[in-house]
Amino acid sequence: MISLTPKLEKESESPLYDQLYRYIRKQIEDGSLAVNDRLPSIRQLSAHLVVSKNTVEAAYQQLLSEGYLQSRPRSGIFVLPLEQVPEVEGKPGASVRQQSEKPLHESSLQGRVGTIDFEYGDVELELFPVKAWKRCLAEAMDNRLHEVIAYGDRQGHLGLREEIARYLFQSRGVACSSHQIFLSAGTAHAVSLLCQLLPLTERIAMEEPGYNGVRAVFANHGKDVVQIPLEEDGLSIEALQGCGANVVYVTPSHQFPIGIVMPVQKRGKLLQWAYEQGGYILEDDYDSEFRYQGQPIPALKALDRSDRVIYLGTFSKSFLPGARLSYVVLPESLADTYRNGLQNYSQSVSTLVQTAMYLFMRGGAFERHIRKMKNLYQSRHRALLRAIHDQLGSRVGIIGQKSGMHLLLDVYGRECEELIQLAAERGVQVYSPMKHWTNPAECPRSYVMLGFAGVQEEQIREGVSLLRQAWFE
Amino acid sequence: MISLTPKLEKESESPLYDQLYRYIRKQIEDGSLAVNDRLPSIRQLSAHLVVSKNTVEAAYQQLLSEGYLQSRPRSGIFVLPLEQVPEVEGKPGASVRQQSEKPLHESSLQGRVGTIDFEYGDVELELFPVKAWKRCLAEAMDNRLHEVIAYGDRQGHLGLREEIARYLFQSRGVACSSHQIFLSAGTAHAVSLLCQLLPLTERIAMEEPGYNGVRAVFANHGKDVVQIPLEEDGLSIEALQGCGANVVYVTPSHQFPIGIVMPVQKRGKLLQWAYEQGGYILEDDYDSEFRYQGQPIPALKALDRSDRVIYLGTFSKSFLPGARLSYVVLPESLADTYRNGLQNYSQSVSTLVQTAMYLFMRGGAFERHIRKMKNLYQSRHRALLRAIHDQLGSRVGIIGQKSGMHLLLDVYGRECEELIQLAAERGVQVYSPMKHWTNPAECPRSYVMLGFAGVQEEQIREGVSLLRQAWFE
Repeated sequence: MISLTPKLEKESESPLYDQLYRYIRKQIEDGSLAVNDRLPSIRQLSAHLVVSKNTVEAAYQQLLSEGYLQSRPRSGIFVLPLEQVPEVEGKPGASVRQQSEKPLHESSLQGRVGTIDFEYGDVELELFPVKAWKRCLAEAMDNRLHEVIAYGDRQGHLGLREEIARYLFQSRGVACSSHQIFLSAGTAHAVSLLCQLLPLTERIAMEEPGYNGVRAVFANHGKDVVQIPLEEDGLSIEALQGCGANVVYVTPSHQFPIGIVMPVQKRGKLLQWAYEQGGYILEDDYDSEFRYQGQPIPALKALDRSDRVIYLGTFSKSFLPGARLSYVVLPESLADTYRNGLQNYSQSVSTLVQTAMYLFMRGGAFERHIRKMKNLYQSRHRALLRAIHDQLGSRVGIIGQKSGMHLLLDVYGRECEELIQLAAERGVQVYSPMKHWTNPAECPRSYVMLGFAGVQEEQIREGVSLLRQAWFE
Repeated sequence: MISLTPKLEKESESPLYDQLYRYIRKQIEDGSLAVNDRLPSIRQLSAHLVVSKNTVEAAYQQLLSEGYLQSRPRSGIFVLPLEQVPEVEGKPGASVRQQSEKPLHESSLQGRVGTIDFEYGDVELELFPVKAWKRCLAEAMDNRLHEVIAYGDRQGHLGLREEIARYLFQSRGVACSSHQIFLSAGTAHAVSLLCQLLPLTERIAMEEPGYNGVRAVFANHGKDVVQIPLEEDGLSIEALQGCGANVVYVTPSHQFPIGIVMPVQKRGKLLQWAYEQGGYILEDDYDSEFRYQGQPIPALKALDRSDRVIYLGTFSKSFLPGARLSYVVLPESLADTYRNGLQNYSQSVSTLVQTAMYLFMRGGAFERHIRKMKNLYQSRHRALLRAIHDQLGSRVGIIGQKSGMHLLLDVYGRECEELIQLAAERGVQVYSPMKHWTNPAECPRSYVMLGFAGVQEEQIREGVSLLRQAWFE
């Protein structure tokens, strides 16, 4: 057995689990722990170090979720390879440009002329794991051709569903089985299928403002969408109680577009509401991988003791928008109804993509990728906050800066349209979040939206400097 | 023989097959059933447990489709390793087995345990152009990475839409521009989007019998589906005129499941109806590539002078079910409305698949593939007709034999369920077309459905010979 001998200091300000986490991470990074080394069990290590099992578990959990370790069923916990040097194909630093702005999962046709584009929904091309993904595609074609050609399981590739279940447990605390997971071709498609196959009530509540893509799907299925105003800590439970809906769509990990991270107390109240109503919560956890401040808060689904949460996840933000691969985790009580309805439908996600994604997750490449992107986006996020502070100072307020791939600026006393125009003249594209208000006129005129995931740090600094010139000089 | 001794509770809310399924799954998961253990035959187990064969078959089917079991031709049903899936690659003549029957574009859970499976929806694996398709995938990843990673055009890859327009003109006489073409992740998805984004009336007419997958989508969007009876030459225009709908879904090139090829005179009348109504025709041209007798008849869309036809096409039959790639050609007058609605949606087809398909069509490989498959299916079709004539003679009637990938047998004076059961006991799987009747009881009891696209000629002959033994000896 490998030996771990950290010096843990009980007097330190840093908690024991954190010291242990850092120690193991360092061992991996400097090669003292090699790829595929098996770690001691939680019990062994806690006995060895004379610390509680919780301490070891918390450290392991963190390392698992950051992709340093991998838990293999019936085998144990193993060291994963560290990311390789970024595989650059194409222009260094070129980010993936989409045809249009992408709020959450969807997109619209806004112009883009600038050289620096703070478009929400872009992902970074430079760090895309081209080689690893190509290997998975090739393996799927070479060794699993029968999976790739056929329609496939209508619920989605079983192995992939199992990998997703494992990932959700490790990264989001969501305990579910592959039986409850249903793949879909994007989140709009998932919500459409929920409307088609489940007996959801006609009236559905949403945060206001809230993600316009899902609002459109509800409306296009004849639903009566009720707006629930936001408070400091997320949607108003009081307004929800009085609204007559018993289904609500929320983005608790990172309210879209405002960016509120719903605290755990409010999560409890929301779950209580659903329980008392006999209703359901649609939890859209679209970018929860990217959190930069504060303690991790478990998904609503992880806190859901009475089986009232329908969880929506996607690979569009965390990995590959073009895969068109999202998923739903249904409460046990709804899974059979949904599966029955599905008897008349085929699975809509490309089977090649499903099989390749299964191989990509199974081999640990997905976790490594997430870890890499999290570091990258965190750096960009930090660079953006600093540039805004340095360049724009007290003339703007920042809204929703704890996580995700975008934030809002409140440019005090100014008008969005003018701001966008002035920025465009300097070659910088910024956007209005207006369309996420049911009545766009209620969006504060002084708000502009900046996505930063697809913009390099240097461009971020230059872009914000140009914004200062455009808006204040 | 291994012993299976579940406690099945007839009073339980959970159906017997589900109890049996869960029992066997658990035996596999906890190792009580080992890898490569052979399960008892359906007949043996149903006798042993004193349950119907249908119950055992349904449980086996579920386990097969979830990858717990594998059916090996002429050997039996075996336990698979938990992480592995069956590999048919390389075996000459192995057809792609799908998890379930696929009427038109969709699928259902019918049993498949036999050694010769006349399942509708199978495609032939042996002739799949693996190398050419891999080249297109590789070129997309190597030279068009930016297309492959991003969400992409919400209407679909422009180059691919242009290729489709060219193909439709050459092969179906349909003149349209890429502007009118919208890609979707399968036909059910296309029909769902039409329901969501176009102002179709609440009442929609369909052929009776007709494709149950699309009927389900209409119903799941709250549409009132009106059944229009079939005449010799296709749906009754008279009944259509009186039914109060101004939208009709039809399969004129090869009525599903009956197989009528609608003659050009009736096409004219149908178009006239739409023109007078100011209504629309949804033309599903799902397998028009494969026509074996008679003159080619242009698509309705090709005859559509007053812009009333919404054309549905798919690559699931002609190329690759797992691509999940279908398309809609809209009348000019509807294209803008649809495109506006689409502003809140992303494209749902994998961008990798779109780009690879574009390259595959552009290089001529698609047309070569179609030609090859048409020859192959024609040979199989001929072999099937001859075998039926030789073996079954005047004891059966053949329905819908001019084109496509399936036909119906009318086994005079007999009952479908018995016929399916007798065939299964000889290792031949045939199917009931019953579910395509709105009221399944109205389906003639003597009809069985045979798909032949995935069955080799020799197997076709052997299979029909076994049917004779099963049914008439």
